[in-house]
Amino acid sequence: MSGSIFGRNFRISTWGESHGPALGVVIDGVPAGLELCEEDIQIFLDRRKPGSNPLSTPRKEDDKAEILSGVFEGKTTGTPISIMVRNTSQKSSDYSEIASYYRPGHADYTFDAKYGFRDYRGGGRSSGRETIGRVAAGAIASKILSKLGISVECYTKSIGPVEADLTDYSREKVLSNPTAMPDDKANEEALEFVSKMREKLDSVGGVMECRIKGVPAGIGEPVFDKLDALLSQAVMSIGAVKAVEIGDGTEVSTKFGSTNNDAFGMDENNNIYKKTNHSGGILGGISDGSDIIIRAHVKPTPSIFSEQDTVNKNGEVIKVQIKGRHDPIVVPRAVVVMESMCAITVLDLMMSNMSSTMDGLNKFYNN
Amino acid sequence: MSGSIFGRNFRISTWGESHGPALGVVIDGVPAGLELCEEDIQIFLDRRKPGSNPLSTPRKEDDKAEILSGVFEGKTTGTPISIMVRNTSQKSSDYSEIASYYRPGHADYTFDAKYGFRDYRGGGRSSGRETIGRVAAGAIASKILSKLGISVECYTKSIGPVEADLTDYSREKVLSNPTAMPDDKANEEALEFVSKMREKLDSVGGVMECRIKGVPAGIGEPVFDKLDALLSQAVMSIGAVKAVEIGDGTEVSTKFGSTNNDAFGMDENNNIYKKTNHSGGILGGISDGSDIIIRAHVKPTPSIFSEQDTVNKNGEVIKVQIKGRHDPIVVPRAVVVMESMCAITVLDLMMSNMSSTMDGLNKFYNN
Amino acid sequence: MSGSIFGRNFRISTWGESHGPALGVVIDGVPAGLELCEEDIQIFLDRRKPGSNPLSTPRKEDDKAEILSGVFEGKTTGTPISIMVRNTSQKSSDYSEIASYYRPGHADYTFDAKYGFRDYRGGGRSSGRETIGRVAAGAIASKILSKLGISVECYTKSIGPVEADLTDYSREKVLSNPTAMPDDKANEEALEFVSKMREKLDSVGGVMECRIKGVPAGIGEPVFDKLDALLSQAVMSIGAVKAVEIGDGTEVSTKFGSTNNDAFGMDENNNIYKKTNHSGGILGGISDGSDIIIRAHVKPTPSIFSEQDTVNKNGEVIKVQIKGRHDPIVVPRAVVVMESMCAITVLDLMMSNMSSTMDGLNKFYNN
Amino acid sequence: MSGSIFGRNFRISTWGESHGPALGVVIDGVPAGLELCEEDIQIFLDRRKPGSNPLSTPRKEDDKAEILSGVFEGKTTGTPISIMVRNTSQKSSDYSEIASYYRPGHADYTFDAKYGFRDYRGGGRSSGRETIGRVAAGAIASKILSKLGISVECYTKSIGPVEADLTDYSREKVLSNPTAMPDDKANEEALEFVSKMREKLDSVGGVMECRIKGVPAGIGEPVFDKLDALLSQAVMSIGAVKAVEIGDGTEVSTKFGSTNNDAFGMDENNNIYKKTNHSGGILGGISDGSDIIIRAHVKPTPSIFSEQDTVNKNGEVIKVQIKGRHDPIVVPRAVVVMESMCAITVLDLMMSNMSSTMDGLNKFYNN
Repeated sequence: MSGSIFGRNFRISTWGESHGPALGVVIDGVPAGLELCEEDIQIFLDRRKPGSNPLSTPRKEDDKAEILSGVFEGKTTGTPISIMVRNTSQKSSDYSEIASYYRPGHADYTFDAKYGFRDYRGGGRSSGRETIGRVAAGAIASKILSKLGISVECYTKSIGPVEADLTDYSREKVLSNPTAMPDDKANEEALEFVSKMREKLDSVGGVMECRIKGVPAGIGEPVFDKLDALLSQAVMSIGAVKAVEIGDGTEVSTKFGSTNNDAFGMDENNNIYKKTNHSGGILGGISDGSDIIIRAHVKPTPSIFSEQDTVNKNGEVIKVQIKGRHDPIVVPRAVVVMESMCAITVLDLMMSNMSSTMDGLNKFYNN
Repeated sequence: MSGSIFGRNFRISTWGESHGPALGVVIDGVPAGLELCEEDIQIFLDRRKPGSNPLSTPRKEDDKAEILSGVFEGKTTGTPISIMVRNTSQKSSDYSEIASYYRPGHADYTFDAKYGFRDYRGGGRSSGRETIGRVAAGAIASKILSKLGISVECYTKSIGPVEADLTDYSREKVLSNPTAMPDDKANEEALEFVSKMREKLDSVGGVMECRIKGVPAGIGEPVFDKLDALLSQAVMSIGAVKAVEIGDGTEVSTKFGSTNNDAFGMDENNNIYKKTNHSGGILGGISDGSDIIIRAHVKPTPSIFSEQDTVNKNGEVIKVQIKGRHDPIVVPRAVVVMESMCAITVLDLMMSNMSSTMDGLNKFYNN
Repeated sequence: MSGSIFGRNFRISTWGESHGPALGVVIDGVPAGLELCEEDIQIFLDRRKPGSNPLSTPRKEDDKAEILSGVFEGKTTGTPISIMVRNTSQKSSDYSEIASYYRPGHADYTFDAKYGFRDYRGGGRSSGRETIGRVAAGAIASKILSKLGISVECYTKSIGPVEADLTDYSREKVLSNPTAMPDDKANEEALEFVSKMREKLDSVGGVMECRIKGVPAGIGEPVFDKLDALLSQAVMSIGAVKAVEIGDGTEVSTKFGSTNNDAFGMDENNNIYKKTNHSGGILGGISDGSDIIIRAHVKPTPSIFSEQDTVNKNGEVIKVQIKGRHDPIVVPRAVVVMESMCAITVLDLMMSNMSSTMDGLNKFYNN
Repeated sequence: MSGSIFGRNFRISTWGESHGPALGVVIDGVPAGLELCEEDIQIFLDRRKPGSNPLSTPRKEDDKAEILSGVFEGKTTGTPISIMVRNTSQKSSDYSEIASYYRPGHADYTFDAKYGFRDYRGGGRSSGRETIGRVAAGAIASKILSKLGISVECYTKSIGPVEADLTDYSREKVLSNPTAMPDDKANEEALEFVSKMREKLDSVGGVMECRIKGVPAGIGEPVFDKLDALLSQAVMSIGAVKAVEIGDGTEVSTKFGSTNNDAFGMDENNNIYKKTNHSGGILGGISDGSDIIIRAHVKPTPSIFSEQDTVNKNGEVIKVQIKGRHDPIVVPRAVVVMESMCAITVLDLMMSNMSSTMDGLNKFYNN
């Protein structure tokens, strides 16, 4: 099998290559009755569009979403929603050279090893353009979650050594800053840092963080479909992500039980809450009512313009210098992808959760 | 749905609570013709057994594996293999007190929030004993992989601040040292460190690392069932794991493309190889022929003996002091769980991979 | 993969061979809060037990259900329920002869072709005893459905040429008559017919019918997980079933639209209903509020005592005469299996249906 | 969840409504290296196109297949193949009237009951046009199977009382006769019969049969994913099918073991074969090497032009007379749909089967 389907009840099936005729997604399991139009999708797609800021390639990608099914008179019908984005500005000639050799850090070699050959144009299916389908589906999942009082917000936490200060976090800054950082000062420093590294023909990595607010306690299915386990699959499946953390993440390995446990208390409305949130909103794989916090570490763009050692398909050792248009950092455009994958995962598990108790079944069917 | 089933072609379905009559697993999709006996399972189960070293609780758990189906005349038949371990030494009385309140860092609260009530004895389904089924299945997956020339070896990389030196790595040390560290000196230091923290009624965390050798290039299914994505789900689904890294992991976010890319070269047998392995054996979600390296960060045992704040089911704020027998660190016994989950995931994807090409189908069916 | 897992949200994983140590099922996705005890399971298992009537083999099978997990203080916890039945009266010696040849009408040859060898004792995994796991799971599904006002009742419709008259249908007769027919007269005639054929060393087939009452309109997921499609998989997966019909079934192919369409009307409570039920309660793969009716045609037991032609594993043509204890008809004991599979399927789709609309999600999560 | 995804390893995800912008399918799991072009798809789609014979509606549907992904330089790449067909000749105005009431025999009422409202134009998702995605995927599955020496041929077996004589079966007649019958005489009689019923403003049903040749013994996964069980789901999921038979099908219920069992023998090449094929090529849910035979009973088109009783959305009892363009029989155009579903199912199970034995794994990976 190929693994382009994700989800149990809200199932997305993505397709498309960087330089094929189009890319898209089919979403099976969207509840009926949601108001939905192409603009809802476009807002998300525009966030991953290149060319709008100094960090990204000057390629022009129009990426216009077309809804082909599942919506009638402005509302979802409950049947699969197919969304397509035509590839318009791809020039295959740019990539003809890389057909013959394996770019370091890319999937060229592994695709050839698996399938015997590959669509080498722009990385084919392993291109970042593959995420268009994820983001289109994420737009819908996010809209549904917002109707249930849940927000999913992802941002750039760091780029190379430059870390964002979250004290004055604002969603607006995330959406307007080219780095997707919620901190203007760090945004400036990061831009400068990236610019310097680009001049050195090099690329840089960074960290994305997603915060999900409003998820009720009880979401996540033990033991393999835990909320953190499926979020990890979802986020690690994004190209270039090499590590995933929940809550305090890697720090927990050097902490003590006395400092890592979150004490429970009662809030002003007499509801149970956690006084701290080291757990990142998840205990035993199930949401605990606190904010859900997940981080992803993203590697530097493998396409760099300095000379590298590699081999070609004939097994000859060669030197290569990659040409073309490549972002020196993946993170800012990947933020909306991570946000989308998190939204899809949470919604999917909220759907699964509906049949967890007899009380739930009775409430649904007996009145 | 509940999420106790894992895998696409090699599918495991685990069940059982800490203090129920038994725990176990059904494995659907074991190839026919594998020699298998209960001893194969027992060797793995014994590695997660407590009581055999100073780091673990003095509870006596016999954990005898019984194969109930799927094996005939010493060989697997291709039908589901059911493995059961009876609970023998569990005393429910030990746990009656915790029925009424929510232990910090545990899943007590989230299970109640999800299901309305819970089997509070020893943590019920959220107990570490849940992993018995995983390990029994892992024993089988590992045996199959070994027939295909693949080894899966997991070890303790660090406990608190004590890091193992991997220079003289030996599997024997991992299996004999109570810390599961492949380094005698670090083993001693770690034992001392844990012992000190235990005296302070506290607990500690650590890091596990798994190295998988011999996986051919080409395993993993883009885009959601990538090898790293499914490994992340598999490993993050283990209780107490809060972060997962592939290859250089979190380090990549501060690295440069020039230092993070692995150059390709030709080895003495004229095969393609990577000169370095920052990628951890995975490129584009597909194995690249190098060792696959995955790390998990494990939080300190939430059961500590010092006083903690919490609330009870009536919403009253209380102070609690957990009693009973609890390991001050999870890591050494979790090593075989991580090894098992990695083996299951790799084998499952190797099965999926068999239908990836027409050449493969032809080779299989046309001669 | 092996195919011993069924269901999307209510997922059953069955295991076990005729002459292995035990058989059973793990059910993943049982809602928490259902009162459940072993007696609930036993009532169902007893209905498939042989030896209690003249139609069935004199083998004594105790088939005592043991619940191993997922139930605490008399209620389901939401975690997997494992149920095991020990094999007690199986004598392997009875079957040693059939190890070497392929019984006509049995799965001996196909199992060998697939797996290279087989557990030949009593048919191994292809034995009717395989259905123990289905029936145990069906007992739970049926109990849940009954809480939602839904009844699932299966009965023998015909045995050979003897057809039951359903005019005075009563569940009690189905449960007490050895044929499972809801008609005493037909029951007598069928017993006589079977007895006569048994004397001729032959076996007979029959028809089972299942009627499901109380399913609300709207259950079933277009287009592949239609209610009738999944019921067909569920029922056809029962050994010996060779045809499945919904509503008027095979008759529709010679009918006209004018006589096959069911007119809609308004009932005394001002609810929409269908004046007739040719559709068998399903339109477009979705329940229409009428009784759901499904029939299965069951082949004669392949184990007959007269001489038959076959081949052995060495490819030699031989004559065989099957010995041992075999029911001359499968139907009466299969009735509870079909009832179980139908209950599981309907419940599973009712769970899937919960996330079909935004109204449903809002009702569930927003108040 | 919505149920528009089918298959385990060869997974199809269909989408689209009768009068939406387009319909299509994404196929995840097509092996790399298959030569594929749009003409391969078009040949299949043309077989379900209306307007080419007296039995079908005069609607003009162009149904041009466009391959949007997964094919590069004329060969499949192993990544998802997306195929789209634009809706061109749909006029929504034709259907405005039916928005307000429930057509007998249609899914109007059940879609409203499930989703709260529906895309009423031409039946929306429950339209026969939904099958475009199935047929496009079936074209690919059939092509792959043909490379493995397997043919899948479906034809019309009967229309109303007119039964085709299969003695001189020829694929060419199936493809050229407007009834899709492999018998010219029956074809003429059926045309006349349908024509007569159409004049009476009525519609008729029929039977389709599919014969699959060349499947090796051993395909199918016990116990729920049996070959016959999944074929039943696949075929019953086709709109208007109300019964499915394997081999002798419904006849088995009145047969005897002595006449229903197929004796094994050795053929001239010293291979095992069955002397008869009552089993329809499947024993114990696994292919037995004989032709696989499956039949589907199709109800008369529910859209008839005579007056019918029904109710409208306001719960008022009304008389309706359906207008528009509707085939008086579904069967001839559904033949290619059944053929497609059978091909998809067989191929999917052949993929699953590849990991059934250690020998298979070793053969694949160790040389």
